[in-house]
Amino acid sequence: MRDIAERAGVSESAVSFALNGRPGVSEVTRARVRRVAEQLGWRPSAAARQLSGEGAATVGFVLARPAHTLGVDSFFLQLVSGIQEVLAERHLGLLFQVVEDVEDECAVYRRWWAEHRVDGVLAVDPRTDDPRPGVLDELGLPAVVIGGAPDERHSGLSTVWADDAGAMAAVVGELHALGHRRIVHIAGIPGLAHTERRMRSLRAEAERHGLTEVRSVTTDYSDVEGAAVTRSVLSGPAAPTALIYDNDVMAVAGVAAAAELGFSVPDDVSVVAWEDSVLCRMVKPWLSALSRDSVEFGRTAARELTSLLDGSPARTVRVPLPELIVRQSTGRAREA
Amino acid sequence: MRDIAERAGVSESAVSFALNGRPGVSEVTRARVRRVAEQLGWRPSAAARQLSGEGAATVGFVLARPAHTLGVDSFFLQLVSGIQEVLAERHLGLLFQVVEDVEDECAVYRRWWAEHRVDGVLAVDPRTDDPRPGVLDELGLPAVVIGGAPDERHSGLSTVWADDAGAMAAVVGELHALGHRRIVHIAGIPGLAHTERRMRSLRAEAERHGLTEVRSVTTDYSDVEGAAVTRSVLSGPAAPTALIYDNDVMAVAGVAAAAELGFSVPDDVSVVAWEDSVLCRMVKPWLSALSRDSVEFGRTAARELTSLLDGSPARTVRVPLPELIVRQSTGRAREA
Repeated sequence: MRDIAERAGVSESAVSFALNGRPGVSEVTRARVRRVAEQLGWRPSAAARQLSGEGAATVGFVLARPAHTLGVDSFFLQLVSGIQEVLAERHLGLLFQVVEDVEDECAVYRRWWAEHRVDGVLAVDPRTDDPRPGVLDELGLPAVVIGGAPDERHSGLSTVWADDAGAMAAVVGELHALGHRRIVHIAGIPGLAHTERRMRSLRAEAERHGLTEVRSVTTDYSDVEGAAVTRSVLSGPAAPTALIYDNDVMAVAGVAAAAELGFSVPDDVSVVAWEDSVLCRMVKPWLSALSRDSVEFGRTAARELTSLLDGSPARTVRVPLPELIVRQSTGRAREA
Repeated sequence: MRDIAERAGVSESAVSFALNGRPGVSEVTRARVRRVAEQLGWRPSAAARQLSGEGAATVGFVLARPAHTLGVDSFFLQLVSGIQEVLAERHLGLLFQVVEDVEDECAVYRRWWAEHRVDGVLAVDPRTDDPRPGVLDELGLPAVVIGGAPDERHSGLSTVWADDAGAMAAVVGELHALGHRRIVHIAGIPGLAHTERRMRSLRAEAERHGLTEVRSVTTDYSDVEGAAVTRSVLSGPAAPTALIYDNDVMAVAGVAAAAELGFSVPDDVSVVAWEDSVLCRMVKPWLSALSRDSVEFGRTAARELTSLLDGSPARTVRVPLPELIVRQSTGRAREA
């Protein structure tokens, strides 16, 4: 206080009035004091800002995944990194929490709201039957749903989503053109909005192309289930000639499982991985994969949330369609 | 306020006195009011708690890694998940930030301190020449260094560390027993405390066993550099018969690079990966790897920080030695 007063050429009480937003000093003095104070490293305390109604300057992010399922993941750290980049420009903090399930996630939102800990939240992994949008709406907590469906009914929430249906259509189109007629989609967790969008799109595309031996099998996203489903579908009668995996980890595990059964990729069976990552280039053959910019996805979501915090209305934003990178794991169907 | 007053059978001003910790009500009344208030969903606002000196109820965690290097990682999400578990029990939030480098990290600490945003921090990836302990000491911010050296000079900081030297000695001992005399350690980023501990231990063990053809080569931890160094050392004269990789991603990329050069694992060259993960079981042959419980590592670090916040003195805690899981990638040296 004394240093600021000296440098600004005013009394200590004038400094106090100026920095605490109280009357008693002119706007010119207030601006000079604040400039000097900031040069000396002063920042308004987060607590003081909150009580003065300036908000928590913090955004919340909850990941509802049991700890033991947090395995190898290329998506979340990149998403969070993009989110961070935008929040940092605005001097907003990111309050992060890992919980077991969406019920716990709702409890966290209620607590954060009651304790005025966050100004808004970013919600991931939306489900077809999801209690979170209702809770966020009820609390009036500004929120962006990452990966949400475009027909979201909760008007207070923004949605940033990828066109999973369009991407699936592109993959099925590519495989169909290569002569594949029997295709299995080894999907992620049932009930997640994007899993359901991919499965619906697969059915629609199969129908459009007149393919009757096309289906989805859901999993928990793990390498273990990815390998197990691969073994199961390749061991049955009329084995598929193409497999679409909902992530990179399952695709890599699936290729190994196929090799054990004597299936060669892509001669006997073609493979496409949904999430491109370094994993897809660490196995032989290199995997064809759907690639997207997860860092930019995070940036987009954070920008939508800062817009909401600035008072803009909620809206729905679509990120660019993932691109199918054709590498060595896709080829013409043997019987084509 | 009115609801609480009605249910507790007191006046609204008594409720206000009771919840704001002001005198004017008996302790019995204060306890009753608080109980009723909590039943009705009331929580002390984070902002009010801060100003009353109860702290931010938040812990900070900064990851100084450029966004583009955040690739496939099995360690950090699990570490954070363990940290979370302990913080959640104490109703402490985790403020998370990704920055480019440790200089930016120091700036974040200074800002968090100035804005009273956190009660303490967890710092990762300590370096041999690290500005962060000095800054944290200067700010008086309670901190736990994860992976720090046991001889840390900053007495105000707690340290949770793994015995990398002991683990390296176990690996070298195992390889020596299998007849390996030419060993290359494909290390992580130079200057990180645990990289330097591993390299020092490798040199000491080589000397102890009388091995003259043992050395470390540092990398950026990426699959690209892991593969490049593998190609380089296997193409030179007197190629090593055993490779020790500082993470799983480099080991998997290294096995593929070795195969391209016609080296069979483990017949021509044995491979050990430092960080066990699902990746080590997704390639053929399955990789021998050092396994540790990253979730428990996170829990331990968070427990040390809550102890510091409770006023306990700083201390140094060692987590259990990583265990060498011998799978299919290690065998007898051909010339042994």
